[in-house]
Amino acid sequence: MSGRRHDPAEVLLARRKLRIDEVVSQRVRGLTLVLEQVHDPHNLAAILRSAEGLGLQDLHVVEGPKGFRPSQAVTQGADKWIDVHRHESAAACAGQLRARGFRLFGSQLEGQARSLQELPAAEKLALVFGNEHAGLSEAFAGHCDGFFRIPMSGFSQSFNVSVAVGITLATAMQNRRTLGLGGDLSEEEQAALRQRFYALAAPSTRRLRGGEG
Amino acid sequence: MSGRRHDPAEVLLARRKLRIDEVVSQRVRGLTLVLEQVHDPHNLAAILRSAEGLGLQDLHVVEGPKGFRPSQAVTQGADKWIDVHRHESAAACAGQLRARGFRLFGSQLEGQARSLQELPAAEKLALVFGNEHAGLSEAFAGHCDGFFRIPMSGFSQSFNVSVAVGITLATAMQNRRTLGLGGDLSEEEQAALRQRFYALAAPSTRRLRGGEG
Repeated sequence: MSGRRHDPAEVLLARRKLRIDEVVSQRVRGLTLVLEQVHDPHNLAAILRSAEGLGLQDLHVVEGPKGFRPSQAVTQGADKWIDVHRHESAAACAGQLRARGFRLFGSQLEGQARSLQELPAAEKLALVFGNEHAGLSEAFAGHCDGFFRIPMSGFSQSFNVSVAVGITLATAMQNRRTLGLGGDLSEEEQAALRQRFYALAAPSTRRLRGGEG
Repeated sequence: MSGRRHDPAEVLLARRKLRIDEVVSQRVRGLTLVLEQVHDPHNLAAILRSAEGLGLQDLHVVEGPKGFRPSQAVTQGADKWIDVHRHESAAACAGQLRARGFRLFGSQLEGQARSLQELPAAEKLALVFGNEHAGLSEAFAGHCDGFFRIPMSGFSQSFNVSVAVGITLATAMQNRRTLGLGGDLSEEEQAALRQRFYALAAPSTRRLRGGEG
């Protein structure tokens, strides 16, 4: 059981690699999330965990005066596996996403927003959420191709922002599955991501010595 | 504008009554939520707000040693419009729901749970969530007809409990809509609920004087 050919550390690493391969093969970049000045550390951490767990690789942030500081106790390490892209302004963020072929849809509580089920799931989608109190800024709303809302029928007209993001991303991923869409990274992107994740998963002493397993 | 026939307080009350009528007509009792020893006040408040906003009228709670104490700052008043039923044990809660014709499904992170989309939406459903750390107790799991999970494909294998409940209830309500199912209260139940809600919506001085107009 403990011979050289079954070194427990190597067995563990092999298992981790299998898990990484599985996650990377299902990773999605064609659906992304944008947070504009969401600032509560608890909410940010819950959002990172939801986005990572649902399979997103990218998260875009327009930082407000309070910055982007997820509560480490709540992320449960999810922040290690997702790429956070920081932008200085709504215009810079929207411009970059549009240049990459994304259509932008903003979360809206009222008005003529389409329901979540009606988002065009086959296209590259960036779903944008505004600040806990002020909602989406007019600046960012002006860059959006359209708006969506979560169907509600009670007196409460909004959700906690981390709940709203969770419902939205879970529904958008379900919409993708309905169309038969799974992981969407190219072979090259997957290979690069696997190497990064292998390095992250290797015991930290090996990482310090530069080993990438 | 301010004549006796257009008393602003009466106009406001009339508007509130219209809103109440709309909410009551869409209220749902055939889908309910059970929380077993969920204790974080922030999570509880976010859950109450989600459940109420999505249209549920009933919430069942099996209290743990820390009780059921939603954070008032986060509920935003949602607790006023939803009925919280407290039970002393898993057996008592499950027994009462089963006697009323509910099928019980527990949230599960692993194993052979069915996906959310496969829950039998046409039946009376009670969806059960366990404690933040320990999950569903074996006692309650033993009373369940089956288990469900939210499809995930990342390293994070769970959501914050308020996010998990939000995704679950939003999906279950969407499943109902797909079948053409809306509000399900009988005429008598709706009339009784309207009267309760009118009283709650009336200015508090009138309530103190016993008026329910």
